[in-house]
Amino acid sequence: MKITILGCYAATPRTLTNPTSQVLEICNRIFLIDCAEGTQVQLRKNKIRFSQINHVFISHLHGDHFYGLVGLISTFMLLNRQTDLHIHGPKGIKEIILLQLKYSNSYTGYNLFFHELTSTESEIIFEDDKVIVRTIPLKHRIYTNGFLFEEKPKERKLNVEAVEKYSIDKCYYQNIKNGKDIILDNGKTISNKELTFDPLPPKKYAYCSDTMYNEEMIPLINEVDALYHEATFLETETEKANKTMHSTALEAATIAKLAKAKQLILGHYSTRYENIEMFKTEAEEVFSNILLADDGKIIELE
Amino acid sequence: MKITILGCYAATPRTLTNPTSQVLEICNRIFLIDCAEGTQVQLRKNKIRFSQINHVFISHLHGDHFYGLVGLISTFMLLNRQTDLHIHGPKGIKEIILLQLKYSNSYTGYNLFFHELTSTESEIIFEDDKVIVRTIPLKHRIYTNGFLFEEKPKERKLNVEAVEKYSIDKCYYQNIKNGKDIILDNGKTISNKELTFDPLPPKKYAYCSDTMYNEEMIPLINEVDALYHEATFLETETEKANKTMHSTALEAATIAKLAKAKQLILGHYSTRYENIEMFKTEAEEVFSNILLADDGKIIELE
Repeated sequence: MKITILGCYAATPRTLTNPTSQVLEICNRIFLIDCAEGTQVQLRKNKIRFSQINHVFISHLHGDHFYGLVGLISTFMLLNRQTDLHIHGPKGIKEIILLQLKYSNSYTGYNLFFHELTSTESEIIFEDDKVIVRTIPLKHRIYTNGFLFEEKPKERKLNVEAVEKYSIDKCYYQNIKNGKDIILDNGKTISNKELTFDPLPPKKYAYCSDTMYNEEMIPLINEVDALYHEATFLETETEKANKTMHSTALEAATIAKLAKAKQLILGHYSTRYENIEMFKTEAEEVFSNILLADDGKIIELE
Repeated sequence: MKITILGCYAATPRTLTNPTSQVLEICNRIFLIDCAEGTQVQLRKNKIRFSQINHVFISHLHGDHFYGLVGLISTFMLLNRQTDLHIHGPKGIKEIILLQLKYSNSYTGYNLFFHELTSTESEIIFEDDKVIVRTIPLKHRIYTNGFLFEEKPKERKLNVEAVEKYSIDKCYYQNIKNGKDIILDNGKTISNKELTFDPLPPKKYAYCSDTMYNEEMIPLINEVDALYHEATFLETETEKANKTMHSTALEAATIAKLAKAKQLILGHYSTRYENIEMFKTEAEEVFSNILLADDGKIIELE
């Protein structure tokens, strides 16, 4: 699992920093999470192939999380995209995009599917054979969802030495990988444990931006491998954080601690701060494994 | 008069080039012409003070000319702008912007005035004591206007030596600058010509993008000091130019020649071309004073 931070600053695009967007590579799927103005240039800079993006997840309809989407959709059009594109986001996203396509009299040559979200309960919004994506209801000034990206349990790893020792025919290998025991021709049962190794545990990544401090998300993000949690402010601006329904670095770290996250990634920094290291220092008061997101940073979840 | 090119490439924002936007400084007024994605970052890079922009002119509703507008409006909001902002653009621009502000539940703390255009005849869309702006109806795939920015005739320059020679009281100076003759106490009339010099001739700048070759614009842009005319293609792509209702460099130059423009500025290059010098070479076949627009270029009209 690999996260490429395209932008992780709040509010407005600036000369050297970009508002929110990131790319998640999970089981060879490429998901785009949020899509602020400038995202398509950031995709180019980070050498993400446009054609690989089939699913876009939009957390909420504040501009610093989706103003780049209509441009990206148009660029896909100009690049003669043929594959379907799925947009998962709050109700309204379809109206906004289609209105602009209507006035420009341009329609996509590919299928554009909108999956509009309205539920305030967590729900599964994407599922295939390898990956499952759920919403994480967040508390912000407008309807907002975080997203939990989860690998499905992987098949067990074949113990080649063991299967060869028992001369098991290859046609049984898939059954063995699926966890089945094997009955030999002599009637003896060989337990699956003897024939396989444990697979790598499935990984989970939770993306939570924008949100105020909200313990209700904790059961949903329990023991995630990485939690991206917004930290727009430092504790010195607590009042501002409360008023704008954002979090401080300390609050983000408290959520990570309560959720027993393995790693916390901080982002969505207010542009008022010159030095983002202070976010790490503050968060380390309650949680130790902290990474500061920064534009262009690649985070591999081992 | 000074033009700052923020972006002058067609279609999509790329790592090193930006779609259309430019700033015109005319008689201390700052006008923003078109506003593609990335414009606010380009404004920052080119050190244009956001607060000085009170009028935005949008040629048409293709994304590469206006997708940056909603973000700019939002940024003005975040910067606590108080002054009125006027948007001049095709019908539809208001609906597009207000829909997005509605869903983000954010409203501007400043007055936002939309002046929607629908006429296919040239009309005056802005006028104050120093400047007049008219539309230039263009021929493109959707409703499109170019804009003619014109200084109003300036007051005559006082010939200080002459007024002192006749001991004319200072209270008459403004009348003299306005072109009036003066009757001295002895009854003798002094003609204005003797008391003043000709002012600098008022300047005219015509912005014409996007458009196919269209001689109908010529009377409107006659003898402009500078004509910015789109040249999306070279003559080798004439067929593509016709199909997409764009112009070639040669066609732009032909319009400049027929309109007796003093200078032609080429822009809106298709991103298929690696080297924009070819646009100049082609246009020079019929017109000599050619400037290639490029992102960040500043053009002073002397």
